[in-house]
Amino acid sequence: MKKSIGILGGMGPLATADLFRKIVQLTKASCDNDHIRIYIDNNPAIADRTAAILSGGESPLPEMIKALRNLESCGASCIVMPCNTAHYFLPELQKLTKTPFISMLKATAKTCAAQYPGKCAAVLATKGTLRTGLYSQALASEGVRCLIPTDEEQDVLMHLIYDVVKASKPLTPEADAWQALLSGLRARGADYFILGCTELPIVAQELPTHERFVDPTAELARAAIRFCGYALAE
Amino acid sequence: MKKSIGILGGMGPLATADLFRKIVQLTKASCDNDHIRIYIDNNPAIADRTAAILSGGESPLPEMIKALRNLESCGASCIVMPCNTAHYFLPELQKLTKTPFISMLKATAKTCAAQYPGKCAAVLATKGTLRTGLYSQALASEGVRCLIPTDEEQDVLMHLIYDVVKASKPLTPEADAWQALLSGLRARGADYFILGCTELPIVAQELPTHERFVDPTAELARAAIRFCGYALAE
Repeated sequence: MKKSIGILGGMGPLATADLFRKIVQLTKASCDNDHIRIYIDNNPAIADRTAAILSGGESPLPEMIKALRNLESCGASCIVMPCNTAHYFLPELQKLTKTPFISMLKATAKTCAAQYPGKCAAVLATKGTLRTGLYSQALASEGVRCLIPTDEEQDVLMHLIYDVVKASKPLTPEADAWQALLSGLRARGADYFILGCTELPIVAQELPTHERFVDPTAELARAAIRFCGYALAE
Repeated sequence: MKKSIGILGGMGPLATADLFRKIVQLTKASCDNDHIRIYIDNNPAIADRTAAILSGGESPLPEMIKALRNLESCGASCIVMPCNTAHYFLPELQKLTKTPFISMLKATAKTCAAQYPGKCAAVLATKGTLRTGLYSQALASEGVRCLIPTDEEQDVLMHLIYDVVKASKPLTPEADAWQALLSGLRARGADYFILGCTELPIVAQELPTHERFVDPTAELARAAIRFCGYALAE
């Protein structure tokens, strides 16, 4: 029986589409039938994860669980979530199902350790993700040094994520702010950057720079492809 | 109750990801929660539609029906198929469910009639789609004149669709063949081009020309967004 992937999505919808496309493009395939079966529940009713963690906002769990049940009933062999902040809720969700979750953060930390040994990673993420310490912990357990953005830098990131990408606004006017953010972090010791919010690979793609990035969406795609026993495209 | 979209996908996977992204980008939204719930079954086990129509190949219906049942059990309010050739099987599938299918071909024909009145559309599609006459019929019922590619032109299209996009090969080496195809059709009277295979918007996007295109994937996205009662992004 071939394995399949369930994407618990909608956090946000564009990031979900980005993960789907990356799984397809990173799978070694010469025709449609070589690809992996993928089930997606893009559920935009899932409450904001950062607001729930930082300020006691509505819990995202009830709507996440509805999506999880849909993916289970389709027959997904594993579950992936294209939202870094959502990983705060992963242990609770994992208790509710025998279907294994593949962690985007663990996949990213392993790649950082292998690809940039001894170097320092700047973690670009929402305030919710940073406050939970999820990335610092995942990186530490792989022996990866990291740098966390200052409050002002976090404000710039939140603006790019919420007011621009999630709001479907054009990115071009943000090019200078993006480069300034990266240069500032590099000046403080960062060797490379983790695009630790699934909206940020979209920013990095549309606003090219000469910096080195690790894209957790792509790392999650690769980990899911390997889990299903398929080969990676070269 | 908000309406949702079910994407019966995998025909092919990249085209499915393209439709998903277009629905998200064409929905007027200022945050995640403004988006439409979308269920996707990306089922690459669905047999090749063109081979089934042209040469008695394995029927795609059994695997299409499995995906349809998954989308129904998730609760999809309508079903869309990001594969023009698959529309040959739409009447048979519609008999099996009360959930309405939204036809990509009808949506495209309506846009052609409204956007290019009196002009001639060249239909770029697989041999399977062209042989069925599905597009000629859909266009005729909206009073749209059309031009069908010659056998040689159809060979070029099949190469681009099967040997390049579906095979995940680079498009850049195909730029001259693509432009020659379009110029030939224009010389024979085409005023604009229908990208009537869901792999072709990917070709048109990666190989820019000055031609005018109608993208059935985008038209299907718009029709599905309207069906669900959401507003289109400007």
